[in-house]
Amino acid sequence: MLSRLLHFHLPNPRLYRSPRFSRTATMSTVAPSLSEITSKPGDRSNLIPFSKRLREGRALAQDVWSIFNAANLPPTCINLGQGYMNFAPPDWVKEAATEALGSVAANHYSHPKGRIRLRNAIKQFYGPKFDRDLDVESEILVTSGANEGQYAVFTAFLEEGDEVIMFEPYFDQYLPSVTFNGGRPVFVPLHPAQNTAGKASSNDWSIDFEQLRRAITPKTKMIMVNTPHNPVGKVFTRQELEGIAALAEEFNLLVMADEVYDCLVFDDKEHIRIATLPGMWDRTVTVMSAGKAFACTGWRVGYLIGPPSIIFPTLAATTRIVFCSNSPLQEAAAAGLEQAVERKFFETQTAEYAERREILCEAFDALGLTYYVPDGTYFVLLDISGVQWPEDYQFPSSLDGRGRDFRAAWFIAETVGVSTIPVSEFYSAEHAVIGERFIRFAFCKDADTLRTAAERIKDLKKYLKL
Amino acid sequence: MLSRLLHFHLPNPRLYRSPRFSRTATMSTVAPSLSEITSKPGDRSNLIPFSKRLREGRALAQDVWSIFNAANLPPTCINLGQGYMNFAPPDWVKEAATEALGSVAANHYSHPKGRIRLRNAIKQFYGPKFDRDLDVESEILVTSGANEGQYAVFTAFLEEGDEVIMFEPYFDQYLPSVTFNGGRPVFVPLHPAQNTAGKASSNDWSIDFEQLRRAITPKTKMIMVNTPHNPVGKVFTRQELEGIAALAEEFNLLVMADEVYDCLVFDDKEHIRIATLPGMWDRTVTVMSAGKAFACTGWRVGYLIGPPSIIFPTLAATTRIVFCSNSPLQEAAAAGLEQAVERKFFETQTAEYAERREILCEAFDALGLTYYVPDGTYFVLLDISGVQWPEDYQFPSSLDGRGRDFRAAWFIAETVGVSTIPVSEFYSAEHAVIGERFIRFAFCKDADTLRTAAERIKDLKKYLKL
Repeated sequence: MLSRLLHFHLPNPRLYRSPRFSRTATMSTVAPSLSEITSKPGDRSNLIPFSKRLREGRALAQDVWSIFNAANLPPTCINLGQGYMNFAPPDWVKEAATEALGSVAANHYSHPKGRIRLRNAIKQFYGPKFDRDLDVESEILVTSGANEGQYAVFTAFLEEGDEVIMFEPYFDQYLPSVTFNGGRPVFVPLHPAQNTAGKASSNDWSIDFEQLRRAITPKTKMIMVNTPHNPVGKVFTRQELEGIAALAEEFNLLVMADEVYDCLVFDDKEHIRIATLPGMWDRTVTVMSAGKAFACTGWRVGYLIGPPSIIFPTLAATTRIVFCSNSPLQEAAAAGLEQAVERKFFETQTAEYAERREILCEAFDALGLTYYVPDGTYFVLLDISGVQWPEDYQFPSSLDGRGRDFRAAWFIAETVGVSTIPVSEFYSAEHAVIGERFIRFAFCKDADTLRTAAERIKDLKKYLKL
Repeated sequence: MLSRLLHFHLPNPRLYRSPRFSRTATMSTVAPSLSEITSKPGDRSNLIPFSKRLREGRALAQDVWSIFNAANLPPTCINLGQGYMNFAPPDWVKEAATEALGSVAANHYSHPKGRIRLRNAIKQFYGPKFDRDLDVESEILVTSGANEGQYAVFTAFLEEGDEVIMFEPYFDQYLPSVTFNGGRPVFVPLHPAQNTAGKASSNDWSIDFEQLRRAITPKTKMIMVNTPHNPVGKVFTRQELEGIAALAEEFNLLVMADEVYDCLVFDDKEHIRIATLPGMWDRTVTVMSAGKAFACTGWRVGYLIGPPSIIFPTLAATTRIVFCSNSPLQEAAAAGLEQAVERKFFETQTAEYAERREILCEAFDALGLTYYVPDGTYFVLLDISGVQWPEDYQFPSSLDGRGRDFRAAWFIAETVGVSTIPVSEFYSAEHAVIGERFIRFAFCKDADTLRTAAERIKDLKKYLKL
């Protein structure tokens, strides 16, 4: 029993702030930092060690959010780091939630597949987009947010040692979700174009298909395809998706299409669903999010669309993980999808986001810095190579061992009062150097807030390299 | 790649209806049956096999709910099988949900630890019950239902091959939640008293402590203690909990105290929390449920209370599994806990449940059948040894290979129009014979419904053995 009695006190927290262990972010806030997972003085705790799976996938590493916590930054700082809206969901969607609360059934357990009204609404709304008459019993699954949906797919399909390919920068939750389920993440970076200057396109980030092919091994089980892409804002082209599809077919890979920003594509750019490419339906599960669609990130309603061969095992997993998703907000999400077309909701919302995007981009234009106009999502990457802070500028020790982007984000937050997220956070150590050139701005905030932020950003002018 | 290409078509579904593989239930409805996890004709599906973890823990077995599905039973059947209320949460709790929907922040991501208002409400309400000044940052964790909370504890603590002891009958979700996380369930039956007849007490079910001790091996990591107990209705005594605690200390075990029915204890019986016994705080995590407390099983809000050494690793797990729980209904649960004492809510609710319990018990008394008056929960076990159906009664083939309790439950549902749950479903194959004597009634239904059910139950009189 000796090993059981060993405490899991973690040695020197600084050790874990090395680039290898330190980079972890969460969707919007704080995972426990290592310093939190210690016993209090006098406590007889830590008798039983936690699972070694928590030591993988950066699950315990100090994350970017605890570093860039509001408490550490000037109180007047405008938060363009975290990807949640500072506005409410539409009234007509919220009213459906209130109506559901007024019933009996919608306050109780839902079927683990999801409430039938929501599954029907998904069928009606998404069926045409997938060119399919979706079967509500076997091809649609409601999950407790897109995050839990992705997790359940990993639980349903990954065996110990299975490899999952993800493009960098990657959505940070992928990593521990894969490792918790015994998988091994394999990273393939997207490459920003060389010699861009000033206003560039998110589509200037491209896939090196030879590199992608080399990343595939006999252990590869799955590839993650996030389009529109967070944080690049790239909407994958048909040619790119066909290239990925060809490899998925050649090597018999499962494709997880993370399309949670599918309702946020600008300038009539075409959002192509990899599931609709020839032969791809049978090996693709597509993940979507009511939170992104209807400005309610805290409702935790997501949905999966895919063939029965993927949906049923994932249903078996999600049934055990959460049993079912919350009922009243499923009803509200159903109302959202039912009425969205008639209300031209997504057209209006996209136009509003395009305006928000423009407000930020104008500030970057004024500075002449390189940035990538996103074709989709509510994120924009700014190249901070041209920002230069005073040599004697004092950074907190929490940034030790972090990339230049961490210092740039810190400096910008403290100096002009706009907080952002350093992009190396979304890279493996091997490729972090690519990410260190960028910080991410979220523009899912009201226009006035963004205008104030834009004015502040222009104050960076005096810190630009000549 | 050959093995990858093998289909996962499952051979003969009948095979899986053997006692070994066939028993699985869910909290209230249907997990996918094996027959669902097959490709449609002409489909090119099943290209990629699902994980072998789905083959463990009965995760794919045909479950009791799909057998006792309303569609298979008389349409007028009263459902006392499933444990959800046919009444709504209190208006003042629902109003808090509507109020939360009216704000901006409560529609967006919560901190993975839970919303601070709810954590404060838990501290105020439960602190005195745990004799502790609970720390809202490190000793309380909000989860997406108690189910996900339990799952996250398993994710945080189980290593491959770790054993988890559970008393039978056990809450069926424990089993796959353990096996999905690499654990191995070890079953220790509670023993009903011999020679009981007529009205008995749920406390007549006891632990054989020598048997419990023998179940502990060097691989044992955790023991589940469910009190008040589903489905027995037993409230564990101080002596029993001290016995478990002594073993937990001796063998350094983690204790998961599943106390989701803590607010439903009758007749001034004392609900003792194992976490409050000497030395037990440091090794115990207690699981509770807003759904059970406030008649809102579909809200998916649960909470854990425990020492930082358990809460922090579990936070790391839940952050990756679901990221956070839904925000508006957390606010409503907070309002529930904030106002419960002043409104004497639980006293009133318990009195209402006691009345409901009485309605059912009177029917059993009228029949003279043996049953166990529950000290807690909204379940009551009826011994169906004395029920005898006609020898030529026709049962569906879905009951082949199932225990006598399955046939009794089916016969009662068809003959008198009240559906229940056969209790062998909550046993391992080894001990199923104990469970085959019982069916479970849920009395979380309004009094009128229960009165109608009680009248129907009395019709069993003509089917009793002499």
